[in-house]
Amino acid sequence: MSALSEKFNEYLKKMQYYEHANTLIYWDMKTGAPKRGLEALEDVTAYFSTESFALSTSDELGQMLSGLSQPEEFEQLDDTMKFIVTKMKEDYDRDKRIPADFYEEYVRTVTASENAWVDAKQNNDFASFAPHLEKVITATRKMTSYTDPDKEVYEALLDEYEKGMDSATIDKLFDRMKEELIPLVKKISEAEKPDDSAFKSYYDPDAQRKVQKMLLEYIGFDFARGNVAESEHPFTLNFSSKDVRVTNHYKEDDAIDAMFTAIHEGGHAIFEQNVNPEYDGTVAGSCRYMGVHESQSRFYENILGRNRNFWVPIYGKLGELLPQFKQISLDDFERQINNVRSSFIRCSADELTYCFHIIIRYEIEKAIFRDNVPVSELPKLWNSKMEEYLGITPDSDTDGILQDTHWADGSFGYFPSYLLGTIYDGMYLEAVEKELGPVDRLLADGKIKDITKWLNEKIHRYGSTRTPAEVIRNVCGREVSAEPIIKFFKEKYSRLYNL
Amino acid sequence: MSALSEKFNEYLKKMQYYEHANTLIYWDMKTGAPKRGLEALEDVTAYFSTESFALSTSDELGQMLSGLSQPEEFEQLDDTMKFIVTKMKEDYDRDKRIPADFYEEYVRTVTASENAWVDAKQNNDFASFAPHLEKVITATRKMTSYTDPDKEVYEALLDEYEKGMDSATIDKLFDRMKEELIPLVKKISEAEKPDDSAFKSYYDPDAQRKVQKMLLEYIGFDFARGNVAESEHPFTLNFSSKDVRVTNHYKEDDAIDAMFTAIHEGGHAIFEQNVNPEYDGTVAGSCRYMGVHESQSRFYENILGRNRNFWVPIYGKLGELLPQFKQISLDDFERQINNVRSSFIRCSADELTYCFHIIIRYEIEKAIFRDNVPVSELPKLWNSKMEEYLGITPDSDTDGILQDTHWADGSFGYFPSYLLGTIYDGMYLEAVEKELGPVDRLLADGKIKDITKWLNEKIHRYGSTRTPAEVIRNVCGREVSAEPIIKFFKEKYSRLYNL
Repeated sequence: MSALSEKFNEYLKKMQYYEHANTLIYWDMKTGAPKRGLEALEDVTAYFSTESFALSTSDELGQMLSGLSQPEEFEQLDDTMKFIVTKMKEDYDRDKRIPADFYEEYVRTVTASENAWVDAKQNNDFASFAPHLEKVITATRKMTSYTDPDKEVYEALLDEYEKGMDSATIDKLFDRMKEELIPLVKKISEAEKPDDSAFKSYYDPDAQRKVQKMLLEYIGFDFARGNVAESEHPFTLNFSSKDVRVTNHYKEDDAIDAMFTAIHEGGHAIFEQNVNPEYDGTVAGSCRYMGVHESQSRFYENILGRNRNFWVPIYGKLGELLPQFKQISLDDFERQINNVRSSFIRCSADELTYCFHIIIRYEIEKAIFRDNVPVSELPKLWNSKMEEYLGITPDSDTDGILQDTHWADGSFGYFPSYLLGTIYDGMYLEAVEKELGPVDRLLADGKIKDITKWLNEKIHRYGSTRTPAEVIRNVCGREVSAEPIIKFFKEKYSRLYNL
Repeated sequence: MSALSEKFNEYLKKMQYYEHANTLIYWDMKTGAPKRGLEALEDVTAYFSTESFALSTSDELGQMLSGLSQPEEFEQLDDTMKFIVTKMKEDYDRDKRIPADFYEEYVRTVTASENAWVDAKQNNDFASFAPHLEKVITATRKMTSYTDPDKEVYEALLDEYEKGMDSATIDKLFDRMKEELIPLVKKISEAEKPDDSAFKSYYDPDAQRKVQKMLLEYIGFDFARGNVAESEHPFTLNFSSKDVRVTNHYKEDDAIDAMFTAIHEGGHAIFEQNVNPEYDGTVAGSCRYMGVHESQSRFYENILGRNRNFWVPIYGKLGELLPQFKQISLDDFERQINNVRSSFIRCSADELTYCFHIIIRYEIEKAIFRDNVPVSELPKLWNSKMEEYLGITPDSDTDGILQDTHWADGSFGYFPSYLLGTIYDGMYLEAVEKELGPVDRLLADGKIKDITKWLNEKIHRYGSTRTPAEVIRNVCGREVSAEPIIKFFKEKYSRLYNL
C-alpha cells in the first residue's frame, strides 16, 4: 500500500468515527433520550456535524483524492478502493462547487421552512407556508445550478435520489400505471368491502413487541447484527452491515399496522445487514439509491408480507401471541391486509392507491420546476389530481398538500423513488419466480429465507457499487418496465375482489 | 466576563461534547448495540477517549487554568466557576505529575489483569491471577507516588474515592460495627428462618418492567429527565441533571431482585437529577464521592425500601401488576425482603451481612498496602475472615476472593465507600426524623416524596461542591458515627427475628 493510501485510510477512519457518533446521537434522540436531555444532544451533534463537514470538505482530503486519482496511484488500488476514490472525488468536487455563503443561506432557508411547515400543517394554513416554499424552490434551483450546472433542474433532482433515472423514463412508467390502475381502483371502489369489525380490539403492546421479534426473525433479520427500539415514526438506521437498527410504534387499537411496519423496516434492514462487509463505513457500503432501497422494504412488506401464503407457516404462532387472531380466519386476515380504499394520507395508504399518492407528487414537482406553476396554485392542483385519480378531495390542506415534510425540507425529486421501488418489485418477482419457482409455494412451505438469500446475492451485497439501472439489468436482464407490477396488481385484486 | 473566561467556557463545552459522546457510546454498548456492532463502537470510543484525554491534559488548558487562578481573574469569577477552576487545576496538576510512559504501562497492566481475572474467576484459579494482582499492586503504589507524593499509599487510595476520609476514622467506625453486629448476625443465624416457598414462581419480565416504572415514579424519579433500559449488570449513568439513565436486569424466577435494583439505581438517579443544573457538564456537577453517592442508593433501597411502611400505599398496586403478591401478606413480604443469611457473594448479600463483606475487603486492602502481606496468602486470609465474621467458608476462590472485579482493575480503596454510605444513612435517618417526623409514618402515609425533597435540598443539589465531611456536618450537625446505623439494625432485626 502506498504512503498516500495509508494516510487516506487513516483519514477515512476518522471520518467514520464522527459519522458514527452523529448517527448514534440521532438514534438516541429518536429512541432513548429523555425529553429534557434533547437540547444537550443537539449541541453535541451540531459540534460533531461541523467537525464532520470540515473533514469531508478539507483541502487535505481534496489533495489526497486528487493524488489517488492519478494513474500511478489509482492502478495500485483494489476495485473497492477504486470505487471509493472515484465516488468520493465526485462528491467532493460537487460539494466544493457550492459557495460556502450560499450553503449557509440554503440551510437557514430550509430550517425556517421546516418550522413554518410544522405550524402550517397544524393550523391548516397553506398561505403562511407558501412564501417559505417559494424560497425553498428558488434555493433548490440555485443549488442545482452549482451541483449539476449541465443538467435541467428537475433532472438533477431526480438523479440525486435515484442515480441515472430521468423524467422521460418515469413519465412512461407512471403513464402506463395510470392507464391500467385508475380503472382498477375504480372497479374496486364499487366492489363489496370486507367487514373489519372482527379486528376491533385492544392489542397489548408487549405482545405486539413479541410479534415484531417473531416476524423479523422469520424474514431473516439477524439480531446479532441489529436490534429494535421504539420511536414516534418508524425508521431504519445503519452504522455498518454489523449494526443495523429498526424502530416501530405500537398502537393499542391496531396490531396490523406495527406488523407491516416491522416487515417493511425489516426489509430495509436485511438489505443493509447483507451489504459486503468490506464496504463498511465507506461510500461503497450502505445503499445510497432511494428507489433501490425502497424496493426492498416494499418487496418484503407488500409482495411477500401481503401474500396470504406468507402467513401460512406462522399464522398459528401469531394467534398464540395475539389471541384475537385465533378468532379470525386466514381468508379474512388476507382480505383485511389487502383492503384497498382511496384515502388522503400517503403513509397509511394501501399498496395500490399508494401509487397515485406518488404520481400526484411527481406531477406537481414537474409543474413546479418545469412549468413554473405558482406556489399559490398548488393546493388546487393537488386536490384536482386527487379527485381525478382517486375520486376523493381532501377537506383540508393538512390532509392534502401539507401532509408530508419532504418539500418543506427541500427534498424535491425524492417522492418518485418510492414508486420506482414498487415497479422494481414487480420485476424482481418475475425474476425470482423464474429462478426459484412460484413465490406462493416458497412462502407456503416456509422457505422465505430462500428468497432472502436470493435477494442478498442479487442485490444486497453490492451496496452502493451498482447504480439502479445496473441492479435491474443484472437481476432482470432487461430495462425497467411497469408491466410486471401492473400484471401483479390486476391479477391479485381481481381475485380478491371477484372482479 | 473576561476574554480568558470566555475562551475557557468554549473549551469546557468542547470537553463536554467528547465526554457526552463517550458516555453515550458506553450506554449504547451496555444497553443497545448488537453483539457484532461492539467492535466498531470500541474503535470510536478509543478515538474519542484519546481526543478527550488530549483536551484534559493540553498545555492550552494548563495555561488557561493558571491564568484564571491569578487573583485578578479569579476574583471576577462567580462561586461556581471558582470551584470549577480550583478543582480542575487540582486534577490537571495531579494528572500532569503522571509520566506519560508510566501511564501507558499502567493501563496495559490493568487491562491484562482484568482479562486474567475473567479467566481465573471462571476456572477458580487464583494462582493464574496472582502475578497480575501483584503487578497491579506495584503499579498502584507507583501511581500514588506520582499523584499524592505526600500521602501514605492506602490513605491516598481512600482519599481518591471518598475525599477527606482516612483509615483512622474508618477503623473506628468499622470496629464499632464488628463489636455490635457480629453478635447480632450470630443470634439471627440461630433464630427461625422465614419460609420462602410462597415466593417461588414464574415472574413475567414485562410485568416486572411495569413494576420498575411504578416504583421509580413512586420514589420521585423524573422520566422527563431520565429513562430506563436493560443491561447484564444494572447501573446508573448521567449526562447531566437533565438526562440520567438507569438499567435493570429481570430474572424470571425472582421479582424482588429487580424491584430492589430499581429502588437502588433510582436512588443514585434521583441524586443526579437534582444536582443544581448550573453545574451540568462541569466538575461541580454529578457527585464524585462514592460514599456519598452510595449513601443515596442505599438509603432508598434499604432504609426506605426495606421498611414495611414503604409498601403500605403501593402493595395493592404491586399485586395488580404481579398477581403472585396478592397471595402473600405484607408481613410475609416484609420478612422476605429482610431475610438475613450469611452468604458468599457480596452483590446478593442482605443489608446486614453486607457490612462484613466490605469490612473483610477493607482489612485485606490494609494488609496488602500497609502490612505487605504477600498475594499468595490473601485467599487464606479471605477465608479465615469470612469464617470469623459470618461463620462460613467459601468452597472456592470463585465464590471468595475472585468474585469482584475491583482489585483486578486497580480500584483499591473503593470498597469502604459502600459501607460508609450505609453508615451515613443511619445518620441521615436520625436527621430526617428530627426534622420531618417518623419515617414509618411518612412512608405509611405515602409521603415518600417529602423525604426525597428533603434529600434534594440537603444533599443532592450540591453535587460535588461539598466534600463528604461537609455534607455530613451540614445535614447532621456532627462528625460521622456508626452508632445510628448500629442502633437501627439492632432494633429492626430484634423485632423481625423476635430476639
